[in-house]
Amino acid sequence: MDNHLIPVDLGKAYRLINHGPTVLVSARHAGVDNVMAAAWCCALDFAPTKLTVVLDKATATRRLIEQSGQFAIQVPTVAQARLVHAVGNLSLNDDPHKLRHCGVETFGMPGHDLPLVAGCTAWLACALVPEPHNQQDHDLFIGEVVAAWADERVFRKGYWHFQDADPSLRSLHHVAGGHFYAIGEPVVVGGEG
Amino acid sequence: MDNHLIPVDLGKAYRLINHGPTVLVSARHAGVDNVMAAAWCCALDFAPTKLTVVLDKATATRRLIEQSGQFAIQVPTVAQARLVHAVGNLSLNDDPHKLRHCGVETFGMPGHDLPLVAGCTAWLACALVPEPHNQQDHDLFIGEVVAAWADERVFRKGYWHFQDADPSLRSLHHVAGGHFYAIGEPVVVGGEG
Repeated sequence: MDNHLIPVDLGKAYRLINHGPTVLVSARHAGVDNVMAAAWCCALDFAPTKLTVVLDKATATRRLIEQSGQFAIQVPTVAQARLVHAVGNLSLNDDPHKLRHCGVETFGMPGHDLPLVAGCTAWLACALVPEPHNQQDHDLFIGEVVAAWADERVFRKGYWHFQDADPSLRSLHHVAGGHFYAIGEPVVVGGEG
Repeated sequence: MDNHLIPVDLGKAYRLINHGPTVLVSARHAGVDNVMAAAWCCALDFAPTKLTVVLDKATATRRLIEQSGQFAIQVPTVAQARLVHAVGNLSLNDDPHKLRHCGVETFGMPGHDLPLVAGCTAWLACALVPEPHNQQDHDLFIGEVVAAWADERVFRKGYWHFQDADPSLRSLHHVAGGHFYAIGEPVVVGGEG
């Protein structure tokens, strides 16, 4: 378990992905764990908190999610850029030791039979909301967030604090191939700072 | 029309939103234009290029989209943070002069009967892909991108170049209320720089 991990109120959990980070998707079924990268993950609802994630039919993680009915979304960091690129370009279908070869370490949280990726700054445990049409025709999966945690060094009291933390903890935002941007500086409007 | 606007190949248009910016959604029907802000917009497919956007039932823009069957997604800038906050907090239902009061100027592109917001850095003209279940149950709208343009000062040859441009042109990434982040610095993995 991550030393800096704190629980996040479900009503604020959408804020963990509201700024559009590229995420890691993890799942477990029948003793098999996998982790993939996804730039196409987005909040969908506040109450209950839901999100969407696009999972190509070729991905092994998608199968694990269809079988187990649950998955985790996590927000990786600049320090993990190589890991994110690696898990996004190697399939468990081709390498049964993918996670080890990509340098992925996982941990668990009580009550959630999910592999969570160490070193991330936010974790959202999700129950799959089955929607056969969306899954089949659009590769679009809907998850209801059932628990969430964050690294208190960068997320606390409902807000990110990237500007106060080590730059290596900033979120990654994928463009294409090996090209990402880190999240930048705060912009506050309307005297709410 | 924007002086720096260049067309973007449809095969690369997903990259305009792949890094998770908060967007402006605009639409027109029967002589009425509107613009709203949306943090929940996400790429959905490459070929044809599709995207999703979540539109609450209370929004006037949603009605215009349902009636006209089309909309535009655009990527606003740090310089437009107040405008983004303003159009996200004032409804056309309450103020028929919303766009003027929020400082929104629009322009058109030939062949597309859509109001495009001046000062943004990317514009995606979308045809609504009607999905009554997703629209009604999830407020989730799917658009097929039929044309795209970008500001060549920050997007050219398929890549963003925020690092080479004025910081006021960076994309905005919403957290909550008046709190945004600007996109930051590039992170390149795997010798693809």
